[in-house]
Amino acid sequence: MNFKPKTENYKQKVEESFRLQKFMDFIGAKLVEVKPGFCEIHLPYKEELTQQNGFFHAGIISTLADNAAGFASFSLMEEDSSILSVEFKLNLISPGIGELLIARAKVLKSGRTLTICRADVFILKDGVEKLCAASQATLIQIKNSSETKTEK
Amino acid sequence: MNFKPKTENYKQKVEESFRLQKFMDFIGAKLVEVKPGFCEIHLPYKEELTQQNGFFHAGIISTLADNAAGFASFSLMEEDSSILSVEFKLNLISPGIGELLIARAKVLKSGRTLTICRADVFILKDGVEKLCAASQATLIQIKNSSETKTEK
Amino acid sequence: MNFKPKTENYKQKVEESFRLQKFMDFIGAKLVEVKPGFCEIHLPYKEELTQQNGFFHAGIISTLADNAAGFASFSLMEEDSSILSVEFKLNLISPGIGELLIARAKVLKSGRTLTICRADVFILKDGVEKLCAASQATLIQIKNSSETKTEK
Amino acid sequence: MNFKPKTENYKQKVEESFRLQKFMDFIGAKLVEVKPGFCEIHLPYKEELTQQNGFFHAGIISTLADNAAGFASFSLMEEDSSILSVEFKLNLISPGIGELLIARAKVLKSGRTLTICRADVFILKDGVEKLCAASQATLIQIKNSSETKTEK
Repeated sequence: MNFKPKTENYKQKVEESFRLQKFMDFIGAKLVEVKPGFCEIHLPYKEELTQQNGFFHAGIISTLADNAAGFASFSLMEEDSSILSVEFKLNLISPGIGELLIARAKVLKSGRTLTICRADVFILKDGVEKLCAASQATLIQIKNSSETKTEK
Repeated sequence: MNFKPKTENYKQKVEESFRLQKFMDFIGAKLVEVKPGFCEIHLPYKEELTQQNGFFHAGIISTLADNAAGFASFSLMEEDSSILSVEFKLNLISPGIGELLIARAKVLKSGRTLTICRADVFILKDGVEKLCAASQATLIQIKNSSETKTEK
Repeated sequence: MNFKPKTENYKQKVEESFRLQKFMDFIGAKLVEVKPGFCEIHLPYKEELTQQNGFFHAGIISTLADNAAGFASFSLMEEDSSILSVEFKLNLISPGIGELLIARAKVLKSGRTLTICRADVFILKDGVEKLCAASQATLIQIKNSSETKTEK
Repeated sequence: MNFKPKTENYKQKVEESFRLQKFMDFIGAKLVEVKPGFCEIHLPYKEELTQQNGFFHAGIISTLADNAAGFASFSLMEEDSSILSVEFKLNLISPGIGELLIARAKVLKSGRTLTICRADVFILKDGVEKLCAASQATLIQIKNSSETKTEK
């Protein structure tokens, strides 16, 4: 799966969109890598992000998976377009016990309207990565000129 | 679907577990109602919770859906048990533009080991509720005495 | 959720499309009811449709759920359009032991491009209906004139 | 992901269970390969398996994905156990136009109770394989001695 971006500045586009997401700053997530059809996001452990047992909250894990999928897909979209998540499904595989969450997403199919993506979330503990969650997502490209921006 | 809780203090159990989730406090979510097999959670708008367009982030919407499903399921579980999300699937239906997110979850089937739940997330804008997201989730009961706490 | 069909002969459209699905005839499925945004399909038990324990095969259950969702969505689409399933998620809730499978699907949101649907599959045994599976699906409207027929 | 089967005759177990599924014989599906944590199933085109456009029906595609995931998971389970699909999610990526459907499933995590699996379905046309569908599934091991056989 080697993808060719439709715009030269695909990386800038993704970085700018990530920067505009105040929620990423609020939780402390970092955009670590963007390649055509690929995205990696990191999130260091903070007590504020935990569920009842002190592990990373499932909502945080799904946030990272959804965002990595979104930006991996966005990297392949046209210049004057936005992106919206249509849906995603996430399996929680191991508890989020560790110092860093790592989400990596890869595009499976980049269609004219819809993009299908898989994102895996790993938990880093004592230097060892473990699969924490696995997801599969559908995203839609929205042309910026169109009035359908908020209507899928 | 009328469920009978397996423990009298099902409500307390849920409230205590919710209180232990530091992430709920961090984002400002409130547990609004707990009934056997049902849970409602509210989250007022804050700029810190937004994506690139200033709407509620999909990760926040999925957090609320996952948590409402978790606590609706937990309300039917046994005294000495914990709960873990196995997986969930979420469709994002309308953008999260408004002053309040409302997640309502109902148990579809409460099995010995697994519970199946549907959660809908509504966005309140100018006093009108609109369906924002719809989800379906699988949860697992973990006996506290068991050593399998972190291994599904 | 009261939907207004975009074409008068929405029912005929659905019935004709159902008739064209040779797989429906092969397994013996019947289109029982079509209303705007709603569809019900029945399938009597046959040994040929079973898994290793003699129950209805999960693939058959998902076939019925997917098809009911597809036709419920199709009932709301425009005259000159086709429909494709984008994705669906299905929870198997009780084993398919019984004499008849009944799938009922309701549209949750009918958008310009995408439709979101929930379908429940019931198993009828000794005259009693039991929830057998629950699903949530995304479907896409394809304009017949367009060349994108096979490319989502 | 290298898995060690818990029983020597894991392959026989899978083959026997496949043979017992009358639905596999009915549609003409063949079990082509079984390895620990992996399964491949083939299905030649037949008119009886099609939807309204003459392509493989989505229900057939999901049947293959679900079964491949089930048997990949079953290959890692204990001697005296059965398996049930808890849920799965399937994205339909390209239309099923071709002479052969090929489903390949790999286990992501084999837990004590639950197994998580990914299955991809390819369509072979004029000798070229194309990704047709991608799925992610949760399965549960049922001990044969237990009375919970039909209750998850």
